[in-house]
Amino acid sequence: MDWYRLEDVAKEGDLVELYALKHTRFIFNLRKGEVFQSHRGMFRHDDLIGKPWGSQVKSHLGKPFLLLQPSLSDVLLEIPRVTQVIYPKEVGFILINMGIGPGKQVLEAGTGSGGLTAALAYSVGAEGHVTSYDARADIQKVAYENLKRLGLDVRVTLKLRDIREGFDEKNQDAVFLDVQNPHDYIYQVRGSLRAGGFFGCILPTANQVIRLLPVLREAHFGFIEICEILLRYYKAEAERFRPVDRMVAHTGFLVFSRLVNLPYDDEKASENPREIGDESVDQVLE
Amino acid sequence: MDWYRLEDVAKEGDLVELYALKHTRFIFNLRKGEVFQSHRGMFRHDDLIGKPWGSQVKSHLGKPFLLLQPSLSDVLLEIPRVTQVIYPKEVGFILINMGIGPGKQVLEAGTGSGGLTAALAYSVGAEGHVTSYDARADIQKVAYENLKRLGLDVRVTLKLRDIREGFDEKNQDAVFLDVQNPHDYIYQVRGSLRAGGFFGCILPTANQVIRLLPVLREAHFGFIEICEILLRYYKAEAERFRPVDRMVAHTGFLVFSRLVNLPYDDEKASENPREIGDESVDQVLE
Amino acid sequence: MDWYRLEDVAKEGDLVELYALKHTRFIFNLRKGEVFQSHRGMFRHDDLIGKPWGSQVKSHLGKPFLLLQPSLSDVLLEIPRVTQVIYPKEVGFILINMGIGPGKQVLEAGTGSGGLTAALAYSVGAEGHVTSYDARADIQKVAYENLKRLGLDVRVTLKLRDIREGFDEKNQDAVFLDVQNPHDYIYQVRGSLRAGGFFGCILPTANQVIRLLPVLREAHFGFIEICEILLRYYKAEAERFRPVDRMVAHTGFLVFSRLVNLPYDDEKASENPREIGDESVDQVLE
Amino acid sequence: MDWYRLEDVAKEGDLVELYALKHTRFIFNLRKGEVFQSHRGMFRHDDLIGKPWGSQVKSHLGKPFLLLQPSLSDVLLEIPRVTQVIYPKEVGFILINMGIGPGKQVLEAGTGSGGLTAALAYSVGAEGHVTSYDARADIQKVAYENLKRLGLDVRVTLKLRDIREGFDEKNQDAVFLDVQNPHDYIYQVRGSLRAGGFFGCILPTANQVIRLLPVLREAHFGFIEICEILLRYYKAEAERFRPVDRMVAHTGFLVFSRLVNLPYDDEKASENPREIGDESVDQVLE
Repeated sequence: MDWYRLEDVAKEGDLVELYALKHTRFIFNLRKGEVFQSHRGMFRHDDLIGKPWGSQVKSHLGKPFLLLQPSLSDVLLEIPRVTQVIYPKEVGFILINMGIGPGKQVLEAGTGSGGLTAALAYSVGAEGHVTSYDARADIQKVAYENLKRLGLDVRVTLKLRDIREGFDEKNQDAVFLDVQNPHDYIYQVRGSLRAGGFFGCILPTANQVIRLLPVLREAHFGFIEICEILLRYYKAEAERFRPVDRMVAHTGFLVFSRLVNLPYDDEKASENPREIGDESVDQVLE
Repeated sequence: MDWYRLEDVAKEGDLVELYALKHTRFIFNLRKGEVFQSHRGMFRHDDLIGKPWGSQVKSHLGKPFLLLQPSLSDVLLEIPRVTQVIYPKEVGFILINMGIGPGKQVLEAGTGSGGLTAALAYSVGAEGHVTSYDARADIQKVAYENLKRLGLDVRVTLKLRDIREGFDEKNQDAVFLDVQNPHDYIYQVRGSLRAGGFFGCILPTANQVIRLLPVLREAHFGFIEICEILLRYYKAEAERFRPVDRMVAHTGFLVFSRLVNLPYDDEKASENPREIGDESVDQVLE
Repeated sequence: MDWYRLEDVAKEGDLVELYALKHTRFIFNLRKGEVFQSHRGMFRHDDLIGKPWGSQVKSHLGKPFLLLQPSLSDVLLEIPRVTQVIYPKEVGFILINMGIGPGKQVLEAGTGSGGLTAALAYSVGAEGHVTSYDARADIQKVAYENLKRLGLDVRVTLKLRDIREGFDEKNQDAVFLDVQNPHDYIYQVRGSLRAGGFFGCILPTANQVIRLLPVLREAHFGFIEICEILLRYYKAEAERFRPVDRMVAHTGFLVFSRLVNLPYDDEKASENPREIGDESVDQVLE
Repeated sequence: MDWYRLEDVAKEGDLVELYALKHTRFIFNLRKGEVFQSHRGMFRHDDLIGKPWGSQVKSHLGKPFLLLQPSLSDVLLEIPRVTQVIYPKEVGFILINMGIGPGKQVLEAGTGSGGLTAALAYSVGAEGHVTSYDARADIQKVAYENLKRLGLDVRVTLKLRDIREGFDEKNQDAVFLDVQNPHDYIYQVRGSLRAGGFFGCILPTANQVIRLLPVLREAHFGFIEICEILLRYYKAEAERFRPVDRMVAHTGFLVFSRLVNLPYDDEKASENPREIGDESVDQVLE
């Protein structure tokens, strides 16, 4: 079940976004009898139910808001969080680069605030499934609340466990790690991926990438790609078109790889620079 | 029906990727009795059917290849093309920023080689639908072949028409234009979007963005965001970790907006610089 | 005369930088009998005179500071300003790209706060000269004070005039415009440059560049180059090496060109895309 | 003596740039009786002597060229090279950030092809001096020829020595290392810099920066800054203004620091994250 329904008007249970001034957004579920409060006034949910999407609504103080359905991007940016969340620019690229879409079986660790979990669950659709591991009960509780609010909890199995002990799942289409030390879990990942399956992780520092690479090669992963995504906004001014003054300079290095089970030629593998990362595969195919 | 199936072995009809050296990939459908040819030798499809995904296979010349299922990103990069295609980095962000996922109704023009069409169709799943317009019959034919090969043609309606005449569809969740002059079609887009729906386009030049902006404001679109995405790859070298030497510097400016139907205060709207683009909305809500 | 002297100790008249915590810098001239005040305490200049460069000094409150000689970069970042100043990353590239160094004759407009003027004067040395025009007396006064403080006023002639009336100087090695509408002054620039001389300007918006280009071509300038410089800082953390979180996303487009006096073939010149800008020159040489 | 003279016409001994099509440049000295050869025809130097700068000249095959004086940037890009050279975008920032200008004493290692050596010598003017070390005689010979051709050899002392043995010079204003392992020479650098002097280096990989940082801190350097400079060119097309398609993605990480001789509090110094690098200085000043 999807939060983003195809009705013309807001209904009980729908996820709504009330947009106020200056990028202020409030995202919540409509529940009969409940009240939404903000510094710009309050709304009774009952007054919002039945209102057309895209219309302007006023708080009891007469302050106007816009009633919208949030995009996945809005949801990710506004999700209640207890950990660092992954930005939409990275999420979109992760989904498309790791072949994640309707029907896929995906494994994730750690769950964190559940932002990426929600994006994965949204993307795999009703026929797919997401399993997400975290060792911290309090944090996973936040993720659960976030998923439930989005109606995505039914597509997700949350497991409370230190992944050092390994994953229960086998033959997963994709495994994503958002943990500090992915190099410690590569053999666990390997045991859960099907042949040709996708591995991905996001790492803030160069040191973490440097530590991860030899373990990936040792565990016979191939097609290693490392990249970073920079997103630059422009002022929406026809007469003065130019980039905005400041931007986010870094969110993390993305590392992608696929499980390929080839007999490596170690002598060749010790050779010099490879462009973009799949030359280790080339060395075997040559 | 999805090209990316959950079986362990390749079957008749499956979309396969044969990976050779140096980033060379061949993507095609397995058909009994057919033959695949390359400069590194040929394969009989019958010999590939039944082989496990992720395994190494050899051509009649003894040259090795890897047998893989392609990711959406691979498909987009390798799609037979007669027009410029949109890069995966942009496609991922477009999907997530425009709320495109399982169950959505999406409109697109022009179809071009069908790369974005395929990504949209993949993402909306079996319950969603994509309609795509193009005025050039020969080009749309290429797109149709591409979609058919991916098994995504059943989710797409292709229409051969100059969109100046408008779209047949109403209440679409999202409309994406990949045309040279989107400023000429904004009122047509408006007629097809549901309230709060998402508009997006990609434009190579600053001049096109400059021409588009006043039309969007005039047509009461809000939440205008303009951005560009830069993707930088790193060498997968643990001992010499650094960015690769060269990168793609520009693919296009992405423009996003939502249809909000508010009475604008023109005097306010003529005022000065707005950050990131939704201040025109702010001016009405204030 | 240079502010940056080769003595081991600070002397009367020297430009000093007192560095306090958190990137706080104070740059001023040492004058017998004067007092420097800050929220971390005061210093009598007499107590600083004779102190070794690089040493730690304490205010009357016992707060420590470092006594340094400022680099040109420090000076540019800390210069008292009444207008937007040009960043060191652009200044360095402007100097090197426009052939500005010891002995050159350089023209500038507008003077603004005198930051670039100071950099130009520093760079041309005692044998070179800089002439700088501005139409606003109050602003040029600030620039004069800044140059005097740096001991660079003797290398600069400031002229108070609207440059629409043209420049007095001929045969300049380089002319730099930091004004809103450089397209209005290209023929004035042309009259002041020697053959082969360098023109440069910095422009915040794409619209200004778009307006400038046809005028440059019409006035027979060649070797047009347009670029932007992005500077990304990293955390100086050996164990957690990564870019800092945020960065300046835009300061301006730099436009460079050289005065070449060739008979243009207009038919050729109307042809399509030129890479990086000197293909208009190519069209004549072909 | 400077290559870039203020005469209107080319004279014997002058450094000239002959610009042909497609960014092809030839830079050489005019010598009576000599001949310049290219695939587009030849010139007798005697025919170029006396020609006005900026004029069009034709080879014996009737092919046109432009006669120009090269900028420092042109010289750096075209210098005959036997090693990787530093790009103008980095050179400009190095000069301005390390306080290098007329009158300075600067130390460099290794000399390499002499590109940066030439820029330093150009910038310090007739009153300054550059000393440059390299351990490879054949390479330093190339650098010498390059400097001589530019008339800059008189401002440079080349020393053939492994810098592990240290530098002869003391009290230098700035020291720049362009070597693979700067972390091995930090104490040698320290012995040659005056208090408050500037240290800089350029390093292609993250690993090298990671190795350098603790040594700099241990040797009581402060104000550590690490950055990279990205230069993006735009098409000089008024009707189709946009970035060019591809760009250089990486040349190197620049590391800057200053020698400050403070008694460090080691306990404080072991503490956590510092922004941009001078917080180690802050820890002492606090």
